[in-house]
Amino acid sequence: MVGVNGNKVGHLFENISSFVRQCIFSVLNVGPVPSHIAFIMDGNRRYSKKQNLIDGNGHRAGFSALINMLKYCYELGVKYITVYAFSIDNFKRRPEEVVSLMKLMQEKIDELTKEESIVNRLGIRIYFQGNLKLLSDHVRSAAERAMVKTSGNSKAILSICVAYTSTDEIVHAVQESCEEKWDEIRKNNDGGNLIRLEENVKDKDEHRIGVTNVDRHMYMSVCPDPDIIIRTSGAARLSNFLLWQSAHCLLYSPAALWPEIGLRHLIWVILDFQRNYLYLKEKKKQS
Amino acid sequence: MVGVNGNKVGHLFENISSFVRQCIFSVLNVGPVPSHIAFIMDGNRRYSKKQNLIDGNGHRAGFSALINMLKYCYELGVKYITVYAFSIDNFKRRPEEVVSLMKLMQEKIDELTKEESIVNRLGIRIYFQGNLKLLSDHVRSAAERAMVKTSGNSKAILSICVAYTSTDEIVHAVQESCEEKWDEIRKNNDGGNLIRLEENVKDKDEHRIGVTNVDRHMYMSVCPDPDIIIRTSGAARLSNFLLWQSAHCLLYSPAALWPEIGLRHLIWVILDFQRNYLYLKEKKKQS
Repeated sequence: MVGVNGNKVGHLFENISSFVRQCIFSVLNVGPVPSHIAFIMDGNRRYSKKQNLIDGNGHRAGFSALINMLKYCYELGVKYITVYAFSIDNFKRRPEEVVSLMKLMQEKIDELTKEESIVNRLGIRIYFQGNLKLLSDHVRSAAERAMVKTSGNSKAILSICVAYTSTDEIVHAVQESCEEKWDEIRKNNDGGNLIRLEENVKDKDEHRIGVTNVDRHMYMSVCPDPDIIIRTSGAARLSNFLLWQSAHCLLYSPAALWPEIGLRHLIWVILDFQRNYLYLKEKKKQS
Repeated sequence: MVGVNGNKVGHLFENISSFVRQCIFSVLNVGPVPSHIAFIMDGNRRYSKKQNLIDGNGHRAGFSALINMLKYCYELGVKYITVYAFSIDNFKRRPEEVVSLMKLMQEKIDELTKEESIVNRLGIRIYFQGNLKLLSDHVRSAAERAMVKTSGNSKAILSICVAYTSTDEIVHAVQESCEEKWDEIRKNNDGGNLIRLEENVKDKDEHRIGVTNVDRHMYMSVCPDPDIIIRTSGAARLSNFLLWQSAHCLLYSPAALWPEIGLRHLIWVILDFQRNYLYLKEKKKQS
């Protein structure tokens, strides 16, 4: 009987907080809302230590925080959400930690793509961005399955950056651009394998790689540049995340550890974004 | 008589503040000192409005702030100082403003390179970084003269980013890397102009452009990556400044407008850098 009552109280509390949230979001929606927010989910391990949790449970708490944040962003009307889940540099952590994180990632990816998961309920499409070749076969397959399974969803886009660094992304885009140019040169050369260097290639401006070429080949080209990057744990560093895309975006670094991030942080960020909106819009137009 | 006394008092005050500064810096020097600090000098126009100054005088006040900051950094032992003086996007401001800023820039560059200037007294070498072709002939010549005139100085390096954006810098480095690769390919091809595409180029890893190629061709390759970027005016944005180089650096955004930046801001930043030093060192090692 107590259990049933407890359950009822829990539901009631959930309904009330959801109602309050909707009210706040309706007010925020009077102003401009960012179309793309990116998160550097820093502080899972520190949270684990702080709360005396066993290994891995800091990251589990972090995953719950991600699900909440995803829901809030979706309700607010943010169309693109990007998270920095695992950097290429993270592979240099202790091997047992990397293995355990990969296992957790696979488990959470599978959880995310279940029929009844929040991702499917809200119609969110998932992209995994990064050098996926560096992942273990199991995790890569899980990631690929998730992308295929959610490819019909179109209400919002969640980009999960794994095995990612921005310098790697830029160099990858450059290499793709070069290969594209090569193919163009070959095509202009009647498809032959022999090409005349001086006349055809080096000195022609059309064969030079420009900003738009590199832009088009970025992993993150499926989204507009982020309006906001939020890094938890109070550190104001980008740690090689979305460097190319963050030229004109606002950076926030609340002191909360990632599993502690909550609605109040998001509201604060949105209000500050709205205060700076006109100025930022002007700056973006100039660039 | 009053003038002479006033002068004496001024000198005395200057000596006392210099002494106090030296004492503070000796204490700070017990800990690690950043080797490279970069500044986004934001807020000159707002300062001008706030103080009801005539056009251009906000930027003049900003120049004095730069000279002070240069002196403080030098005394502290910071070897590399970089400032964002004029972005490519700034060319889109009102034409009369651009012209007046260019005039001011030329005047200040000439001032900086005089025999008795602070730059020469302290032995600071100046580099102008950016797409200098975009500058007017007068300003470009002044910039080139300054680089030649200070090329014998070696105690510290001041990089002044003009006609600069990070995306432009990256694309420029990519283009240079491509041309270098072309030259390598040609050389391997006995210097001939005809090359066989499939065999020689596209599929060979050695002909792919990598991080180190791009790195080497950055304008900013004369300096190590910055440890710290300080942007005045309270805005936490990079505005297309040193994106490639800021993967692991700390970002600070004091509320002061650029002409208001002072010793206290620098001390606060250095103390915070020292608090985070070991953690940052570990992170850099991992990358």
